[in-house]
Amino acid sequence: MAKQNKTAISPTRAEDYPEWYQQVVKAADMAETSAVRGCMVIKPWGYAIWEHIQKNLDNMFKETGHVNAYFPLFIPKSFLEKEAEHVEGFAKECAVVTHHRLEAGPDGGLIPAGELDEPLIVRPTSETIIGATFAKWVQSYRDLPLLINQWANVVRWEMRTRLFLRTAEFLWQEGHTVHATKEEAVEETEKMLGVYATFARDYMAIPVLTGVKTESEKFPGAEKTYCIEAMMQDKKALQAGTSHFLGQNFAKASDIKFLDDQGQLQYGWTTSWGVSTRLIGGLIMTHSDDNGLVLPPRLAPTQIVILPVLHKDGDHGEVLAYCEALAKDLKHTFYGDDPIRVDIDKRDIRGGEKSWGWVKKGVPLRIEVGPRDIAENKIFGARRDEDGKFSMDRDEFVAKAASLLEEIQNGLLTRATTLRDENTVELDSEDAFYDFFTNNAGFVKAHWNGSPVIEEKIKNDLNVTIRCIPLDDTDGEGVCIFSGEKSPRKVIFGKSY
Amino acid sequence: MAKQNKTAISPTRAEDYPEWYQQVVKAADMAETSAVRGCMVIKPWGYAIWEHIQKNLDNMFKETGHVNAYFPLFIPKSFLEKEAEHVEGFAKECAVVTHHRLEAGPDGGLIPAGELDEPLIVRPTSETIIGATFAKWVQSYRDLPLLINQWANVVRWEMRTRLFLRTAEFLWQEGHTVHATKEEAVEETEKMLGVYATFARDYMAIPVLTGVKTESEKFPGAEKTYCIEAMMQDKKALQAGTSHFLGQNFAKASDIKFLDDQGQLQYGWTTSWGVSTRLIGGLIMTHSDDNGLVLPPRLAPTQIVILPVLHKDGDHGEVLAYCEALAKDLKHTFYGDDPIRVDIDKRDIRGGEKSWGWVKKGVPLRIEVGPRDIAENKIFGARRDEDGKFSMDRDEFVAKAASLLEEIQNGLLTRATTLRDENTVELDSEDAFYDFFTNNAGFVKAHWNGSPVIEEKIKNDLNVTIRCIPLDDTDGEGVCIFSGEKSPRKVIFGKSY
Repeated sequence: MAKQNKTAISPTRAEDYPEWYQQVVKAADMAETSAVRGCMVIKPWGYAIWEHIQKNLDNMFKETGHVNAYFPLFIPKSFLEKEAEHVEGFAKECAVVTHHRLEAGPDGGLIPAGELDEPLIVRPTSETIIGATFAKWVQSYRDLPLLINQWANVVRWEMRTRLFLRTAEFLWQEGHTVHATKEEAVEETEKMLGVYATFARDYMAIPVLTGVKTESEKFPGAEKTYCIEAMMQDKKALQAGTSHFLGQNFAKASDIKFLDDQGQLQYGWTTSWGVSTRLIGGLIMTHSDDNGLVLPPRLAPTQIVILPVLHKDGDHGEVLAYCEALAKDLKHTFYGDDPIRVDIDKRDIRGGEKSWGWVKKGVPLRIEVGPRDIAENKIFGARRDEDGKFSMDRDEFVAKAASLLEEIQNGLLTRATTLRDENTVELDSEDAFYDFFTNNAGFVKAHWNGSPVIEEKIKNDLNVTIRCIPLDDTDGEGVCIFSGEKSPRKVIFGKSY
Repeated sequence: MAKQNKTAISPTRAEDYPEWYQQVVKAADMAETSAVRGCMVIKPWGYAIWEHIQKNLDNMFKETGHVNAYFPLFIPKSFLEKEAEHVEGFAKECAVVTHHRLEAGPDGGLIPAGELDEPLIVRPTSETIIGATFAKWVQSYRDLPLLINQWANVVRWEMRTRLFLRTAEFLWQEGHTVHATKEEAVEETEKMLGVYATFARDYMAIPVLTGVKTESEKFPGAEKTYCIEAMMQDKKALQAGTSHFLGQNFAKASDIKFLDDQGQLQYGWTTSWGVSTRLIGGLIMTHSDDNGLVLPPRLAPTQIVILPVLHKDGDHGEVLAYCEALAKDLKHTFYGDDPIRVDIDKRDIRGGEKSWGWVKKGVPLRIEVGPRDIAENKIFGARRDEDGKFSMDRDEFVAKAASLLEEIQNGLLTRATTLRDENTVELDSEDAFYDFFTNNAGFVKAHWNGSPVIEEKIKNDLNVTIRCIPLDDTDGEGVCIFSGEKSPRKVIFGKSY
């Protein structure tokens, strides 16, 4: 074990939070930069976490009546241009395909050839290409609602990138739906926001605020953007998912029309909603500590790792057989709907190095088994969310493993909720607001009159934005702390990723 | 029901096989062309089949020790150029990204701007970009074998496309591995070919030949390409999957080196292997009939569909409740490792239209339940792989459902195997060979001296290629039927997709 005053990750969170984040990603072997500007390589441990996120979200989408489909990677330039705000929002970060082959150039090297009649944009999001397809699928009110999801890669040419949090290419899901009425579309938008909030809480152990974005922060082309906002350990906000009520904007741009039950031709009402590999960034920043990644058990690729203690002259066979039997019993135990995920690390390396490797990877429970433990039919365990170790009868551990995992899962959520609540304040004056954000980060609840001019000023002065207009607000009307004007409700301010 | 002399799909297989294929895809609502040249939209029914293919293959990859990861969509042009044969093979079909934003052009429309220093190729396959990453991951023999798989989209700018069979963008998996020795790499290449052959047989109900491609048909940059080849109902061959032994070609191009256990620096030995959404095309062409898609139960998104017979004046509530209870009982029954997948089609449309919809979608078992069946506690069923209907006690059906599905699964494999075997001949003379392929398709086993000149001539004369040099060949040496020269073994000839 490392000395008490030394941590596995350097720098610590307190010393340099952004650099700590990069080092956690590296120490847990989750992702790395690639030779392609802004594009990351998601390594097996990071990708396995994404697989668990996918699987559970996908189940939730299907339970709410959605089906998956797949649409083209490329969007003709003219499609993107169909919705004015939309193209303006994405034009500056488009990867543009202009040629369809390579041929020998004058100096012998290969150069692009076969210029396309119309440039193709690598999808930054798929409203316009999916809309063109939906226009064919939707003819009558009987075809509605149309509830589709796509798992895909998208590209937004970002200048400053950070692994998982902001990359030029990222993986995501994008839901796209069409409805016969405005009410149904709004209901869908809010329902899927609810799915995201539930997933964040129950699987990621991340408490989120649900709310609506201001005009200046909404998705290009949307009528209304809903979001979930989480607080990281540096007290900055992370937008973890968005759900957009698109009104009839994209239906008109893509000509999605249907005959209603009165025989009248109407434009459909559409929504879109997405979460991405950015969730993994949020997961890291919510739970990890100065020794590395801490994974909520529900999303941990390995929930329990068994570390055989192999002494030089001991009977390795006996120890390994005991570990195999223990693993087998644990795998027959369920945590939630799935068998417990157990690994045995049989590598022939030093015990300390081996154990620290799993600490840094964030595995919830580590179990050491040596000859002495076998003799006493005990295991020696450590929880990733707590210091210290515990000893337990082998069979008792098997019986309690699932409840221990659940205790860890719940404990992480409680800890994150406490951090957030302790760093959320309500402020009643502009001075207090400026004071707070000059020295601090956190969520500030305060009255605001709805003016984008004030939003802009706060952003320039303090790098603070309105994270959301909360959905569950019960404060009612008041006085804007910046203008003294009437305010319909309090909103949430914060510094953000 | 349609009249006996009329089929749901027009034209029939006999009338126009290629057009029949397109109509089956359309009638089953599996995919359609998009506004983007050569790119398809995979519709929910087609995508659900892909999800089942993915899930089962992914399990097989993981059982053989592979883990998933994700690598960039883009490949710098210089990377592709590192392996000479490789870039030559793909240069003519590359989607090339040359710019990273759009800006207002002279006539007001948007034009590509922000030209890249180096063009990026949308991956047609990922050996070079993954190789660059592997070069960092592999340092010592202790890092080997490195066994990685990626699920991804790829783009090859094809001029003539056909849904699932050949599209500019397609979905696939690509395995990439590095080994310390040539023997281990060859073993891996053959093992993954075996995984593909097993998957084709046990899940897709497609019997495949396993073999090696000739020099002229191998993957650009490979030492040796192994393949699985299936026979479609028009007796043409479909290459359904490939596994490449890459020797040290890509290791040298990407500088993948390791210190062996003697402390010597060595180049690694690499493999790659892939199957794609093309498998769905093969699935369609192997099993479907003149009434539409026929799905092997293991890959059917819905294995049993229950069709409530709702008479105008009858008690819909009672019928639907009976159907729900039946569905529940069936869902508690396992077929293979999974609960049986059951749907109830409650749509208020004519019974004939409803039933034919599911025939065309290929669902293995259709169950009708009307008031009379309920009174007798019976169900009225139809198998997609047979004409006619059957009546059965309700509980007997629940008890037998899984074995009925297995019977259908096995029956499809038997039928496909019979078709293939009946259309595979051994020929001993060039005349017989030319006769056969002038009037026929099918697999021809014949001796060949290994000359690419002969291959070229046959291709030009008959549009026939060597599909593979079979792995399980026991014929031994003989005389080439084209040249009279010595032949080391018989090879398989055929017309192909």
